Amino acid sequence: MRTVVNKNSKSKVKIIPLGGLEQIGMNITAFEYEESIFVVDCGLAFPDDQMLGIDLVIPDVTYLKDNIEKVKGFVITHGHEDHIGALPYILKDIQVPIYGTLLTMGIIEGKLKEHNMLRTVKRKVVKYGQCINLGDFRIEFIKVNHSIADAAALAIYTPAGVIVHTGDFKIDYTPVFGDPTDLTRFGELGKKGVLALLADSTNVMRPGFTMSEKTVGKTFDHIFAEHTDRRIIVATFASNVDRVQQIINSAYQYGRKVVIEGRSMVNVINTADELGYINIPEHTLIDIEEMKNYPDEKIVMITTGSQGESMAALSRMAASIHRKVTIKPGDTVILSSTPIPGNEKAVSRVINELSMKGANVIFQDTHVSGHACQEEIKLIYSLLKPKYSVPVHGEYRHLKTHAELAMQMGIPKENTFILASGDVLELSDESARVVEQVPVGSILVDGLGVGDVGNIVLRDRQNLAENGIIIVVMTLEKYSNQLLAGPDIVTRGFVYVRESENLIDEAKQVVDDAVMDCLDNHISDWGKLKMVVKESLSDYLWKKMKRNPMILPIIMEVE
Amino acid sequence: MRTVVNKNSKSKVKIIPLGGLEQIGMNITAFEYEESIFVVDCGLAFPDDQMLGIDLVIPDVTYLKDNIEKVKGFVITHGHEDHIGALPYILKDIQVPIYGTLLTMGIIEGKLKEHNMLRTVKRKVVKYGQCINLGDFRIEFIKVNHSIADAAALAIYTPAGVIVHTGDFKIDYTPVFGDPTDLTRFGELGKKGVLALLADSTNVMRPGFTMSEKTVGKTFDHIFAEHTDRRIIVATFASNVDRVQQIINSAYQYGRKVVIEGRSMVNVINTADELGYINIPEHTLIDIEEMKNYPDEKIVMITTGSQGESMAALSRMAASIHRKVTIKPGDTVILSSTPIPGNEKAVSRVINELSMKGANVIFQDTHVSGHACQEEIKLIYSLLKPKYSVPVHGEYRHLKTHAELAMQMGIPKENTFILASGDVLELSDESARVVEQVPVGSILVDGLGVGDVGNIVLRDRQNLAENGIIIVVMTLEKYSNQLLAGPDIVTRGFVYVRESENLIDEAKQVVDDAVMDCLDNHISDWGKLKMVVKESLSDYLWKKMKRNPMILPIIMEVE
Repeated sequence: MRTVVNKNSKSKVKIIPLGGLEQIGMNITAFEYEESIFVVDCGLAFPDDQMLGIDLVIPDVTYLKDNIEKVKGFVITHGHEDHIGALPYILKDIQVPIYGTLLTMGIIEGKLKEHNMLRTVKRKVVKYGQCINLGDFRIEFIKVNHSIADAAALAIYTPAGVIVHTGDFKIDYTPVFGDPTDLTRFGELGKKGVLALLADSTNVMRPGFTMSEKTVGKTFDHIFAEHTDRRIIVATFASNVDRVQQIINSAYQYGRKVVIEGRSMVNVINTADELGYINIPEHTLIDIEEMKNYPDEKIVMITTGSQGESMAALSRMAASIHRKVTIKPGDTVILSSTPIPGNEKAVSRVINELSMKGANVIFQDTHVSGHACQEEIKLIYSLLKPKYSVPVHGEYRHLKTHAELAMQMGIPKENTFILASGDVLELSDESARVVEQVPVGSILVDGLGVGDVGNIVLRDRQNLAENGIIIVVMTLEKYSNQLLAGPDIVTRGFVYVRESENLIDEAKQVVDDAVMDCLDNHISDWGKLKMVVKESLSDYLWKKMKRNPMILPIIMEVE
Repeated sequence: MRTVVNKNSKSKVKIIPLGGLEQIGMNITAFEYEESIFVVDCGLAFPDDQMLGIDLVIPDVTYLKDNIEKVKGFVITHGHEDHIGALPYILKDIQVPIYGTLLTMGIIEGKLKEHNMLRTVKRKVVKYGQCINLGDFRIEFIKVNHSIADAAALAIYTPAGVIVHTGDFKIDYTPVFGDPTDLTRFGELGKKGVLALLADSTNVMRPGFTMSEKTVGKTFDHIFAEHTDRRIIVATFASNVDRVQQIINSAYQYGRKVVIEGRSMVNVINTADELGYINIPEHTLIDIEEMKNYPDEKIVMITTGSQGESMAALSRMAASIHRKVTIKPGDTVILSSTPIPGNEKAVSRVINELSMKGANVIFQDTHVSGHACQEEIKLIYSLLKPKYSVPVHGEYRHLKTHAELAMQMGIPKENTFILASGDVLELSDESARVVEQVPVGSILVDGLGVGDVGNIVLRDRQNLAENGIIIVVMTLEKYSNQLLAGPDIVTRGFVYVRESENLIDEAKQVVDDAVMDCLDNHISDWGKLKMVVKESLSDYLWKKMKRNPMILPIIMEVE
């Protein structure tokens, strides 16, 4: 295997994270050498609390568009949304091939199908150990464990040296499916010399080693053994095929039929089944419609919604709005995932709702994560012995802690780089520094609109959300500026108008006075008139009720 | 001490939780016997994600208003917002005296002062061991530990027997201030016989015993010892006077001056200092303006914002919008509180911002809570041996787990009661059952408006928040229905209008066509005209962009 591109100690390679300002969610990193660029991952982020009405967030790839002739392809480490979710949007502008392992590509193809893009996008499935050539780069896929099967780390051979990108990883010596993380290959790479390591920082705050996914299987066995007389419903991440495998194993062992429910769960399990990543014994799976033919104690339902997502199947069951499943007293419901920060309250709500319906809710705090803890990260450093450390995948505090851990592992402080999105890190065997910034940012997706909602619109939505709107409308005669109709006041999201008649009457009086005053003084500038209306009404409402609704004066003109 | 009201096994006492549907936050429970009612606590809740623009939530006390002649007073267990916060609002309608311990009353008086109610509300400070008589009830205050000083449990002597309400409590054998929870008194009460126990359920999911507040003091000492060369900033709950005391102790020991920052922190510490609940060595406290006269390593700042609250002092420092404090590289910032569920992301944001400014952030996960864990709750059951168990203070899943724990402690299942708000539990020595429901609910406070925002307004705000608003305005001539001006389209929170000119033009065309069509067909019913405009525009926008903005047609009429 020819794995070494001609190396030159003066050659400089560039690493450019492009994933939005916070580097959270949108995993997308460009690697550039002279006339070649390739991109690792192309993820989306979910909107934060401030992004009202936004469905998802994708990276601004202006830099790639501006250098489109250099861009050779997207190399994808694994099939999670924060690594693949932006592909259908970005591929519209950046029409290059994508590379990934079999299951990863299967999941991507599902997405492309939804966007009617399956025919137009070039794709190549890559095996572990296999290399692809993209311009001046050669990229090798290396087996790693993660909470989704078929995850890969990348060894990136560049003229400046070898760069290793771990993707999201953990080390599982007893994986449910396939092999453990390929530590041997990491060791070989380390021996040959690694220029830089970009490693997963998600769990860098956690000491020790994360538990094997297999440990969860035992707790399923225990729960199934203790609840033989009732229906069992298990909610988990759709993409965690190994978890689903273990639930199916327990179900089979205890003679239960398995129902898969929830759109993403059905999609992922179908893909995994077609591609051979899950082993479902014959006659185990039944359709949700067949459930009525079996007694409760012969059923296990595997469903989405373990994070309390409001539209997911479990949340709909808990809220009694699921069309096919009704929670019954005695049902045992297992939530098999730790809440992601921010989801705690939603998960609590679902647990409360299920409990009120009489379900026995088991919150399975597995202590199993898909991301490496401190000792695992140290192991990778110990094997690879990189010259430079570039922590990736985490909030600033994680990256910082990761840099400190790298220093403990012997990397000099000046060789660790906490990059902000858009930073261009130029690396060679001799030196490394951030040489410039390229434009980056977040593009908001709302419905079919991509990028048509921005900060001003969001600020308006925030204001509307908190205070509602008051519209003041009037019709003036052109030239004479005589008031022909109004001013009328219409409100939405402000107060119960029926119970606040006095307030609205007074507000109308304030507006009337302001308008009359302007007109009497022959103020014919509509901008001025609107401003006076706005200010007088705003003052009145703040004094009266300490509120700041959006005030929108509209003037119509009749000839 | 005459502590037993004449007891009669046929006498029936009623317990009525009034704190909103979810029982979260708004702690308020009425006790009723024939012509006497008194109320334990009067708390507020903070709005959930759905309650856009709402500042706080208070209980609907219609039941108390309807029985105002019976209501004798409010008995307050401790000074946290979820137990006292609604008092200024509720006391406007229910003008009865309030009873509480010295510090609790001090904090309440601060609130009443803000609402200009200090003169009109009758108040009585009660000591531990002291009893008060309220109609047919006699209430004894019993010392308990909590995360605020001067917390009390209540022994409520009724003609039907003794009911114990723990308030919020923990058992701290080595409290920072004052005595441990008065287990002796609980033992005496148990020996005499307790009809019912209402006990704190917050930590009922946690096994074991919660740690003593004093254990936090040691970790402060360690941190102070390790960071002698830099400024230390500690954020914690303002109401946790014992925590502040321990920070002051460490500061004094290490020769640092203490600056108190954040409005609620200043208020609570002043009250605690005046009333003797905190011991501040002379010349230790300095004003924030004096800080510049001391080197960094001689300063400790104690501040609010440990929960990432956006307007609190620490958050403002982190965001560089604090007027007096600038975070410097090298500052050591200690967050001394565990995030309350729902606040995790906000806390992370503050930690990231502080880290980016070069601060060394220590997240002090104290494992110290103000609420009893399982073994403590069991201890209380073991001492009191109540006939009935009525778990309080927790979400449904907590109350349910508490009821299961009570059963483990020998209470028959039929003697445990998980009450919903408004349930009237009628208790006697012979029987207990929920006999009826009284009206309860949540009243939303927005600015100075109390109850003028309800579900319709919130639904509008939600819609405005997610999709924005499109206003379609036109002027028609009366009688002839001739279109004199418009239809014009104005949007807010919808899209960037400048970059979506085509869309807006097309939308305007859709509206024009709809209006013309109506007028050509002599449709003179404005309701009909508005509906047609709304539907055609709504259809167009959904097809075009899969969005549902609020559409508000306004018609003006000119004679």
